[in-house]
Amino acid sequence: MNERVYNFSPGPAMLPLDVLQQASADIINFDNSGIGICEISHRSKEFMSVATEAEALLRELLNIPQNYKVLFLQGGASSQFYMIPMNLLGPGKKATYLNTGTWSKKSIKEAKLFGEIDVAYSSEEQKFNRVPEDTEYSVAEDSEYLYFVSNNTIYGTQFATMPKSDKMLVSDMSSDILSRPVDVSKFGVIFAGAQKNMGPSGVTTVIIRDDLLDKAPENTPTMLKYQTHAEKDSMFNTPPTFPIYIVGKTLKWLKENGGIAAIEKRNREKALRVYEIIDSGKYYRGHAEQKSRSMMNIAFNLPTADLEAKFIAEAAEQGLNGLKGHRSIGGCRASIYNAFPVEGITKLVDFMAAFEKNNPA
Amino acid sequence: MNERVYNFSPGPAMLPLDVLQQASADIINFDNSGIGICEISHRSKEFMSVATEAEALLRELLNIPQNYKVLFLQGGASSQFYMIPMNLLGPGKKATYLNTGTWSKKSIKEAKLFGEIDVAYSSEEQKFNRVPEDTEYSVAEDSEYLYFVSNNTIYGTQFATMPKSDKMLVSDMSSDILSRPVDVSKFGVIFAGAQKNMGPSGVTTVIIRDDLLDKAPENTPTMLKYQTHAEKDSMFNTPPTFPIYIVGKTLKWLKENGGIAAIEKRNREKALRVYEIIDSGKYYRGHAEQKSRSMMNIAFNLPTADLEAKFIAEAAEQGLNGLKGHRSIGGCRASIYNAFPVEGITKLVDFMAAFEKNNPA
Repeated sequence: MNERVYNFSPGPAMLPLDVLQQASADIINFDNSGIGICEISHRSKEFMSVATEAEALLRELLNIPQNYKVLFLQGGASSQFYMIPMNLLGPGKKATYLNTGTWSKKSIKEAKLFGEIDVAYSSEEQKFNRVPEDTEYSVAEDSEYLYFVSNNTIYGTQFATMPKSDKMLVSDMSSDILSRPVDVSKFGVIFAGAQKNMGPSGVTTVIIRDDLLDKAPENTPTMLKYQTHAEKDSMFNTPPTFPIYIVGKTLKWLKENGGIAAIEKRNREKALRVYEIIDSGKYYRGHAEQKSRSMMNIAFNLPTADLEAKFIAEAAEQGLNGLKGHRSIGGCRASIYNAFPVEGITKLVDFMAAFEKNNPA
Repeated sequence: MNERVYNFSPGPAMLPLDVLQQASADIINFDNSGIGICEISHRSKEFMSVATEAEALLRELLNIPQNYKVLFLQGGASSQFYMIPMNLLGPGKKATYLNTGTWSKKSIKEAKLFGEIDVAYSSEEQKFNRVPEDTEYSVAEDSEYLYFVSNNTIYGTQFATMPKSDKMLVSDMSSDILSRPVDVSKFGVIFAGAQKNMGPSGVTTVIIRDDLLDKAPENTPTMLKYQTHAEKDSMFNTPPTFPIYIVGKTLKWLKENGGIAAIEKRNREKALRVYEIIDSGKYYRGHAEQKSRSMMNIAFNLPTADLEAKFIAEAAEQGLNGLKGHRSIGGCRASIYNAFPVEGITKLVDFMAAFEKNNPA
């Protein structure tokens, strides 16, 4: 095979090679059963044990309290944008949202269909280059929850610490779940598409406090009530079996590699090496304000758009793929989730240093 | 590896071995790119071409007219139960449903949330052992559509020919899509979960006439409007990339094996061999009425429940797995979709003959 490429794609993103090698075998003959993992019934004891193990690992790694349900749903994080207010709001109910990027903006749009939405903070005028401190906004007394996106994939910003509030928190953690510890007990709902830190696309993890399960109005479609999926352990209908299988294997890999504490340390070391070269001169400019910098996605610019295009193309030739920034802000972006290898960081910073030298502004 | 097992599971179900072998390689190194198929961005040219090819093959195989959109969605066929009436009905609007099993019943329940539902036929009192002839029901003049499930997985019944009606047809073809020709132009919507005839679980194909795309009420969540997905070629949000990849490979396999005409012939030959042994005596009894028999799922009983349990267990020992009937009707069931090999049918009928001989009633 070709040498394995370092893939900086924002998601779907790199998965641990060990996990892929295991999947490569299991897709033909799962656990020596003579049937491939995609072919076994979701109601077979073999698959039930795959799903049970994935849930148990997630509970262990994130230290999820007993009064929370873990759901594996379909439809992407984008489906949670409307499912949350559909289940938790209603006429006359209010929620507070922090607008820190494209994904919170989309969430706000959907939430407005179901209740009164108070946008307590927005960094849109600064091109979403920061997230707020707790002192920069207030949460209305009659809000049901405070909603925020913990890490903004496109803009490379992240809440260094989670917002503090008397209200329950609701968070889209699609791009930083499992990258650092979180006190789940402060949250009503945490959700995340799998395709960044957990597995392939096609499954979304929802961690929800159990008193919130049955809040949906009577006339909500069955599939859109959290209760439906909670009662059946995410098996009300056929779940996305292969994505769940990969999530389980990825969680196992994470546990074997030291769990959340170890990965947080490694993530920080990886990111700081890239920020270090950005900060070393004026050639590379980070998009995010220093205090809001993400450990998962690093958005940066070069002196000119032409140099950025050259940078992205030459990097790809050297096996550093997917460094193009999101179309909404342009520039470059390195997405370096849990499974992104340290060796790829070394290769990137070496390349950045050489590129600057060879291509003066 | 162990010998490959013949898996009669109703879905997820057997996939072509060629497809699995290709996937086994591509999951580590897709098309020699140095990146696995689950890791590449859905917006990369590599994945865009996977999705485009899957759609083109489906269009070619089913001869889908130009004025239909093909969507690859998440949420399972169960999500279409509410999306269809949510998009196509509304206060004062009516639709006609044929109640031929568990899945049509669930559909009717969801549809009632969005309009007036006329259940024009039901075989529930006969334990859903048949589907109706066209003369057995009528469709109200003011119905928006006639909804039916073309093949009933649990009960082993199938419409031998599609209902004829002046109204547009809407059909759940989850368990027989691509198993026989269909005149798509008679339909407003055809949908199918992939996990029986098309691929793994986690993606649902929706074929929808383009004039129906923008019928959803203004206040429908963005993700629940067909238009949203149609405008973005199913890439409004991150699609389930691996399931779509397998669908494409499975469609390619189908085309290389002669397409719909050839598979229909083979499916019929496979099923008739099983029905032949059922009809050969009084030991095995088919659940479905003769004229309603499915070519995909064969539900049958043995003289006693004890013999059924023994039959299922001994079959499994011989590499014939998943023959247990659905919990709602018990007994046995052989699901034999497109990718189920002819050799497995031979092994099953031989086993059935031997079991009858060795275990007299």
